[in-house]
Amino acid sequence: MHLVIVGGVAAGAKAAARARRFNQAIGITLYQEEAEISYTACGQPYYLSGLVATRNALIIRNPAEFAAEGITVRVRHRVTDLNTRDRVLEVEDLDHGTREAVSYDRLILATGARPVVPAINGIDLDGVVTLRTMEELDRFKSTLERLKPRRAVIVGGGYIGLEIAESLHALGITLTLIDKLDRIFPRLDPELSQRIRDYLITRGVSIVLGEGIAEIVGETGRVATVVTESGRLVPTDLVALGIGIRPNVELAEKGNVRLGSTGAIAVDTRMETNIPGVFAAGDCVESFNRLTGTPTWGPLGDIANLQGRVAGENAAGGNARFPGVLGTAIVKTFELNAALTGLSEAAAREAGFEPITAVITARDKARYYPSARELTLKLVAESPSGRLLGAQAVGQGSVDKIIDIAATALLGNLTCHDLENADLAYAPPFSPVLSPIIVGASVLRKKLGSVTLSEVR
Amino acid sequence: MHLVIVGGVAAGAKAAARARRFNQAIGITLYQEEAEISYTACGQPYYLSGLVATRNALIIRNPAEFAAEGITVRVRHRVTDLNTRDRVLEVEDLDHGTREAVSYDRLILATGARPVVPAINGIDLDGVVTLRTMEELDRFKSTLERLKPRRAVIVGGGYIGLEIAESLHALGITLTLIDKLDRIFPRLDPELSQRIRDYLITRGVSIVLGEGIAEIVGETGRVATVVTESGRLVPTDLVALGIGIRPNVELAEKGNVRLGSTGAIAVDTRMETNIPGVFAAGDCVESFNRLTGTPTWGPLGDIANLQGRVAGENAAGGNARFPGVLGTAIVKTFELNAALTGLSEAAAREAGFEPITAVITARDKARYYPSARELTLKLVAESPSGRLLGAQAVGQGSVDKIIDIAATALLGNLTCHDLENADLAYAPPFSPVLSPIIVGASVLRKKLGSVTLSEVR
Repeated sequence: MHLVIVGGVAAGAKAAARARRFNQAIGITLYQEEAEISYTACGQPYYLSGLVATRNALIIRNPAEFAAEGITVRVRHRVTDLNTRDRVLEVEDLDHGTREAVSYDRLILATGARPVVPAINGIDLDGVVTLRTMEELDRFKSTLERLKPRRAVIVGGGYIGLEIAESLHALGITLTLIDKLDRIFPRLDPELSQRIRDYLITRGVSIVLGEGIAEIVGETGRVATVVTESGRLVPTDLVALGIGIRPNVELAEKGNVRLGSTGAIAVDTRMETNIPGVFAAGDCVESFNRLTGTPTWGPLGDIANLQGRVAGENAAGGNARFPGVLGTAIVKTFELNAALTGLSEAAAREAGFEPITAVITARDKARYYPSARELTLKLVAESPSGRLLGAQAVGQGSVDKIIDIAATALLGNLTCHDLENADLAYAPPFSPVLSPIIVGASVLRKKLGSVTLSEVR
Repeated sequence: MHLVIVGGVAAGAKAAARARRFNQAIGITLYQEEAEISYTACGQPYYLSGLVATRNALIIRNPAEFAAEGITVRVRHRVTDLNTRDRVLEVEDLDHGTREAVSYDRLILATGARPVVPAINGIDLDGVVTLRTMEELDRFKSTLERLKPRRAVIVGGGYIGLEIAESLHALGITLTLIDKLDRIFPRLDPELSQRIRDYLITRGVSIVLGEGIAEIVGETGRVATVVTESGRLVPTDLVALGIGIRPNVELAEKGNVRLGSTGAIAVDTRMETNIPGVFAAGDCVESFNRLTGTPTWGPLGDIANLQGRVAGENAAGGNARFPGVLGTAIVKTFELNAALTGLSEAAAREAGFEPITAVITARDKARYYPSARELTLKLVAESPSGRLLGAQAVGQGSVDKIIDIAATALLGNLTCHDLENADLAYAPPFSPVLSPIIVGASVLRKKLGSVTLSEVR
């Protein structure tokens, strides 16, 4: 049996490794347009800032390591066509310009996603950069070294924009962050999102919300001024785009692989598409939200790895399931952390719940412990059951821990009654005597009133 | 209605505050032998080391703050007798030597625990110290200042011993740690406990395991040499006892309040004793393990607070429940963290399970992220269901987060199939792309084999 995998950044690389470990007998070939496979896009901002010293640190495994496991890796090869009826791919060797037809028995599409680049005047000027592939990273890095920008405009207040902000600030660059939406990290409810904005302002970042960029004006071919939709002029030496990404689904469409309502490839819980034997995983596929059951597209590195594992195992003859996502996400910008899991209050209402909420501000360690830092936590629960629906946290404290506790609570359908008496790890260097999640759950329980007494499980 | 609370360190103070918030109409009196109430014993080691600069930082709330809420606090008052038939206490004013009878309608016993002090020769020498009450802390601190020890023997390798070790090391004191048991932090399985021992040795601590202390020999009234059971002589200037603690149940026994099999006060899930209207909470009560249903006594500050809240609410007319414990515990010693929740492999076997286990070593952040640190995680699960039974972790990494995820998973009865695809918060500063708990769960799932395929919840 010949398993072909298209794309090898995260999901594809993981699928190849998992397929091989699950089944020693099959042939596995992985095609990748770029010169490298198996790298971490999430680590790129830290290489830009110099926090991660070498580019090589971002490479997880090289083609030779895959080859040693009997996985054939063809880099600089683009899969240009897909015929799922005859199970044939057309592959172009980018270095030699040659094309060949490749047969497969099983196929995994891990074609990823690419940054949205708006079609505005000046978008091709020297000094406009994106971040996604290693090639984009190299161009971003060399642009920084060549132009030595003193000022930069970051377009987009999502994860990428926020991480690039930290990186460029570390290089001494003065920043303006522009986002078309009225707030930063918009999956957070407004009162939490607001805290990120306020924090960035204290770190000297200029923030322009509620309008996109209309045009980039250059001088001698280089970026000089960003013009916003309202006509604001922002002089700058660099424009970093972090507007968002779109799934790469062209190949899937050529093969009549069905897309879902989000525009990404539709798969079942086995990560199999509408075409038997054709699987898909990573940023090119849509998943479903475990809490609402609705399709969702939330491309993230960890999810790509989880899906790649399931797709790889199943393509190799297994029967693993990917149970859907909670929408967990986290970002660090400067020294501020922001994260969420499950449904925000707005998302809960949209999904038809009548949520109750609790917002608390607490330290992440005993108040007298020197490294204790604050965080603001918002919990969202279903009424009257008290079942947790989501959690959001922003602060310099360890929001990652709180959100992971909440995500695990969502997996277990825990209620605020369960969480109010949770036996979590307490010692002064790690937590206040009652974890913020316990305090928040207690506030929720009181809001539910005496109708729903806590129950012993 | 008159609610009387005996003891006000953690559970008693919390119970008083919660009772008042739940019911504005009742009278509340709190008796406390010590001069202070509402302090954190868990923070004491950090005051000894100087990391926490002021003694006052350990005080959470003072009697005046309680008085402002209409809670009468009588410090330096010892409750010497309890007649639960007539609902009368005998109370001694320690400063004036007077005694009075006090009637109550509802009673909460929060009498705490006290350090075990072995009856050996030399135990009363100057330089033998314990840590528990603020008075003991003051004596420990003044002993350090007066004797300026260069060497210390710590007796006991549990939490207290390990925390005192960090504190005394920070003061430049050369340490010997002695424990009668064959390993440190003995609730951990041996291979994890071993890591703590190995680490302490690298930090210059001498370790003597498998024998207790037989005698302390003094010179001119001061500690000079510890003699171990095998006759080993350890010259020292200080002996810090961290052997363990015992519940203070004398008053309960005088009132015919029933003790449980662990020797601590028996309570139901409402924290009520065998005597209606008499509640108990904190280090003086036994709880039950949620996984095994068996009685357990594991005195810890966070559990005392949770129990105090339930006892206070119920004594004031409410109907809250305390659902039992998981046995979660954590300790930091020097830069090493160690924690567990649920059942160790040994405890699981003892409870009649046939556990499967996975031991992995992983970083707590992306491997290329500069502050990433290692941790070793052991997961214990039931076979063939894959239900998680417990987790243990040791390392310089954030074991607190991993153990809290595992504790929450235990509350939700999650299996390794659930955890293998958990949607946790990933970004390089917070986690590797797949959390150690996901990696560990994946190892467990493979051990279970294909009999139990992962299920979509």
